Amino acid sequence: MSVYTKVEPNELVEFLKRYNIGNLITFSGITAGVTNTNYWLETDVGHFVLTLFEQLDFTGLDYVLGLQHHLADLGIRCTAPLVDNRGLLFSTLNQRPAAIVNKIPGAVCSNPSVEQCREIGIELARFHKAGSSYSNFKANSRGLSWWKLISEQLRSVLKDSDLKLIDLVIKDFEATDLTQLPLGSLHGDLFHDNALFDGDRLSGIIDFDYACYDYLIYDVAVTANDWCIDNKGAFLPDKMAAFLTAYSDTRLLETCEHSALPIMLQVAALRFWLSRLFDKNFPLEGELTFVKDPNEFKEMLLLRRDVVVSIIVE
Amino acid sequence: MSVYTKVEPNELVEFLKRYNIGNLITFSGITAGVTNTNYWLETDVGHFVLTLFEQLDFTGLDYVLGLQHHLADLGIRCTAPLVDNRGLLFSTLNQRPAAIVNKIPGAVCSNPSVEQCREIGIELARFHKAGSSYSNFKANSRGLSWWKLISEQLRSVLKDSDLKLIDLVIKDFEATDLTQLPLGSLHGDLFHDNALFDGDRLSGIIDFDYACYDYLIYDVAVTANDWCIDNKGAFLPDKMAAFLTAYSDTRLLETCEHSALPIMLQVAALRFWLSRLFDKNFPLEGELTFVKDPNEFKEMLLLRRDVVVSIIVE
Repeated sequence: MSVYTKVEPNELVEFLKRYNIGNLITFSGITAGVTNTNYWLETDVGHFVLTLFEQLDFTGLDYVLGLQHHLADLGIRCTAPLVDNRGLLFSTLNQRPAAIVNKIPGAVCSNPSVEQCREIGIELARFHKAGSSYSNFKANSRGLSWWKLISEQLRSVLKDSDLKLIDLVIKDFEATDLTQLPLGSLHGDLFHDNALFDGDRLSGIIDFDYACYDYLIYDVAVTANDWCIDNKGAFLPDKMAAFLTAYSDTRLLETCEHSALPIMLQVAALRFWLSRLFDKNFPLEGELTFVKDPNEFKEMLLLRRDVVVSIIVE
Repeated sequence: MSVYTKVEPNELVEFLKRYNIGNLITFSGITAGVTNTNYWLETDVGHFVLTLFEQLDFTGLDYVLGLQHHLADLGIRCTAPLVDNRGLLFSTLNQRPAAIVNKIPGAVCSNPSVEQCREIGIELARFHKAGSSYSNFKANSRGLSWWKLISEQLRSVLKDSDLKLIDLVIKDFEATDLTQLPLGSLHGDLFHDNALFDGDRLSGIIDFDYACYDYLIYDVAVTANDWCIDNKGAFLPDKMAAFLTAYSDTRLLETCEHSALPIMLQVAALRFWLSRLFDKNFPLEGELTFVKDPNEFKEMLLLRRDVVVSIIVE
């Protein structure tokens, strides 16, 4: 997207008085965001990112900003919202909730290396451990009841075979024993374009829009599905091993989590297949965004089900 | 609570220019609200309620206001947010999201009559039917993962017997087959103080703060647990029959919903027991509110489990 909300220099100068971050030198819109308006800020003490949350009711802004603050406090490499002079993590600018975060150095990797998979495995595990002392709650807005609603809404536009596949995955998920799985605060969308690197070293995790409280192994599955694959969505053994070993060396995966991983890899693929199908079939009015191809997640889902079959066959 | 956010007359006059509701005559704070700031408004064309949402990130404000608008459009008796001149259901006033709803006539009943239980049964069923054409989504913020988080956080302060009871109910819920249960938009908190009556006639349902997309039979259970009971929390057969018959005559309860009702009545009691326990043990800083007794929901839960036992024994 491009910048949604224009901020005038005098508005910004006024807003910045709430923070101790020096005087504004320059600011400019960031075009990479998807749902929010972001600006680079340069002041005489450093570089920052200003975010205006375009959905005024941005689900659980308290939760999401509080989580980043909590994690950063415990040394997790991630964006950390600045606390303003009144002790708040966000306040209103131009009719929208707005927050300022530190600028994370580094760049997005186009194709994660084995070493980068190891780095993200360590940091995701540290994230999950640090999250256990964060006491706020936000339900997963992209969980089971959402999959059911969206697949129902897509019923009239999808092929029978696609609907059957979706129903089967949901049925398998519902038949899985999830009762012992550890729950906690998680990222929910840790694709490799939500992490910045300086060479092979992770500098920080960004974009907490889908952070919520849910099964931790689901977050492991979402991450593995994006970081450890070839261009057809199949797992690359060396990247998968690096990621999972690094994760489990930092936060030991329980036996029940190992058992649940195959179905979690499927529903993690399903979740993004469904959201892409939805965006493609029901585009938001007036929105001119590049609709990403849903099929890559369908192909991934089919691959993940094959793995399950091969495990059963063994 | 008392009124949280003071609104100055000139601010209000300015805000009202966004609406076609005539000129302001008087306004005054409503002290009955729990989480939001509410004002009565009188203009030269009618009476309204102004709500300022005190949590700027009020979870799913779009969902909640959109749902009321949708339901009211379909003739459900409930608060309906007014659409402003820009087509919005809410905008910012005094740094907070603010909406104006129609004033529902009537009063809260202190002890629902059999006829009032029938009325709410009909309207809840109509609500659920009308909700099926509402396409937005909000996850239940007081569902399974929340019960698990909160019971974990209460572990150090509760008696072993209470924790054991909580764990048992959650375990029973997780062992229940929920796969066939109809999902939909629901109220989530339809206690009798969230409905206004003119005599025995329902004038409207209010307070959609916990509205979400979840199992419809859960909403039936929450409502029954409050409307159809004696002062010890036991069901009164005449009220329960009136409520359930009226509901099912309007929206036929499926066999699987009948089967799930006993466990749903338990988790509906559990949900409010947990929130009251949490508010009692971890009161919000600086908040001087009357903490409601959690024990009535514990007693109710024990009664609901007895019923299950007696069903099994039969």
